[in-house]
Amino acid sequence: MSILVVGSVAFDSVKTPFGEKEKVLGGSATYFSVAASFFSDVRVVAVVGEDFGRDEEQVFIERAVDISDMERIDGQRSFHWKGAYGYDLNTATTLDTQLNVFADFKPKLSSAARSCPYLFLGNIQPSLQIEVREQVRAKLVAADTMNYWIDNMPEELAEMLKHIDILIINDTEARELAGEANLIRAARRILTMGPRRLVVKRGEYGAASFTDDSYFATPAYPLEDVFDPTGAGDSFAGGFMGYLAAANASDEATVRRAVIYGSVMASFNVEEFGCERMRRLTYEEISGRIRALRSVTHFEEADMPRRAGAVL
Amino acid sequence: MSILVVGSVAFDSVKTPFGEKEKVLGGSATYFSVAASFFSDVRVVAVVGEDFGRDEEQVFIERAVDISDMERIDGQRSFHWKGAYGYDLNTATTLDTQLNVFADFKPKLSSAARSCPYLFLGNIQPSLQIEVREQVRAKLVAADTMNYWIDNMPEELAEMLKHIDILIINDTEARELAGEANLIRAARRILTMGPRRLVVKRGEYGAASFTDDSYFATPAYPLEDVFDPTGAGDSFAGGFMGYLAAANASDEATVRRAVIYGSVMASFNVEEFGCERMRRLTYEEISGRIRALRSVTHFEEADMPRRAGAVL
Repeated sequence: MSILVVGSVAFDSVKTPFGEKEKVLGGSATYFSVAASFFSDVRVVAVVGEDFGRDEEQVFIERAVDISDMERIDGQRSFHWKGAYGYDLNTATTLDTQLNVFADFKPKLSSAARSCPYLFLGNIQPSLQIEVREQVRAKLVAADTMNYWIDNMPEELAEMLKHIDILIINDTEARELAGEANLIRAARRILTMGPRRLVVKRGEYGAASFTDDSYFATPAYPLEDVFDPTGAGDSFAGGFMGYLAAANASDEATVRRAVIYGSVMASFNVEEFGCERMRRLTYEEISGRIRALRSVTHFEEADMPRRAGAVL
Repeated sequence: MSILVVGSVAFDSVKTPFGEKEKVLGGSATYFSVAASFFSDVRVVAVVGEDFGRDEEQVFIERAVDISDMERIDGQRSFHWKGAYGYDLNTATTLDTQLNVFADFKPKLSSAARSCPYLFLGNIQPSLQIEVREQVRAKLVAADTMNYWIDNMPEELAEMLKHIDILIINDTEARELAGEANLIRAARRILTMGPRRLVVKRGEYGAASFTDDSYFATPAYPLEDVFDPTGAGDSFAGGFMGYLAAANASDEATVRRAVIYGSVMASFNVEEFGCERMRRLTYEEISGRIRALRSVTHFEEADMPRRAGAVL
């Protein structure tokens, strides 16, 4: 089944403790679509400037990502984000944001885009997410958001949440959105806001999935070398939605596997700048980490030892 | 098999966002021994003052914890810790520490104590841990420590680490001890310092176990109501060691189950002040959470969906 993703296609300038790089192809729709492309057909709705050239296009073409709904505006530049990470790599400091073409982004959807059965609303302004959502006859809609929209556009965001099936955010965002420090309580509250499922990305601690009557959690794939965390959340979402669309199902068992696929795609993505690691990723590497992640949490059942003879 | 634990038996005054209580029976040896007592015989080596009365003694007696090696000093008061937790409940702020009898603690071990096959060195000064370790002919020795000893007695601590099999600390301590922000790298480094296994407590994110050639991780049991985190680490260690001693084994499969038992005991302990929740805990409740924690991480294997027809 085909997935439509709306989000940013951007150039990032990233500094980590391990190196820095200018003008890396990034953006939520980029990371998402490259990750999802391993499992499903993907179409991207986005806007780029004239600095989006052959090299950038090639990243999508080689992964057979459909960019016919990607708008290119001459005389303007693409969205540009500049950020830095400290040693803990959990939080990015934004140094500069240039919206450029993104400032006036009005998603234009082709007829093919509007009939995609799976839709992912990347982290953009909630009103744009709603606009896209209304145009697509999708059977399953997932969305991301961020603290900026939670703080500054809570009403738009609340409206957006009413129109999606799955919300995929990180744990800080979940606590903030719910106004609740305990993540389990936060999840319960968010599930009253619209989505029937909440998927929480927890960085080095893994990921979790909540519905009213289910809870699944996985640790992260154990990485010694996290090089650049940019795009981890979007490559997670891409692996997750790519798996669901390929399975064409969203029952609990399928979703659990999708969370594992998302975790594994994110684990590869953070090993290099931009999409570089995903561009040369093989199915064998993916299945190796799926197996490894399974064995990380595996334990055999055994009878409980009850202490004999104690005065209890 | 019998476990010997050396550590503090203390009175805590605790304030959390949900309430506060004065003079709660606490201390590492208390939480540890009560948790371990569900699975194994336990003896406590500790020192208390004359304020340790019948009510406190009763907590150990009802769990059949052997306190014949617990020294009681007349005319002095027990160790007293006063602390507070904010809404995130992850970090305690110490408001007051009165060492009292603990200032001159010289552990005195009976012959029975010295022949315990399992030994847990609770979080006390590393030189005392070494002193106890040298007197006990244990087949398996585990220890805890904290940032205070890492900062102020690094050489004593380094010596202590050479004489134990398993180090059980939290993730902040692991990063600090190794001088390494990445936990997987930190674990690798710590495993060169003496212990052959590192068990890392990650609070709401669960726990993990590392050896040179194995990695196991579990999410935490999902709790909506964490009331008082005091003693979580020690009740984890008690459940963990209690399980190992009951199984009388420390192979990878047994250790994985022990981590699950530790996690479950900690999950109960944080539901009320002091040991109150553990005092009325049943085996049925424990096995219920063991099963639940197993299902949290469970997912069925399935073939990987490989996308057909893509130009890859």
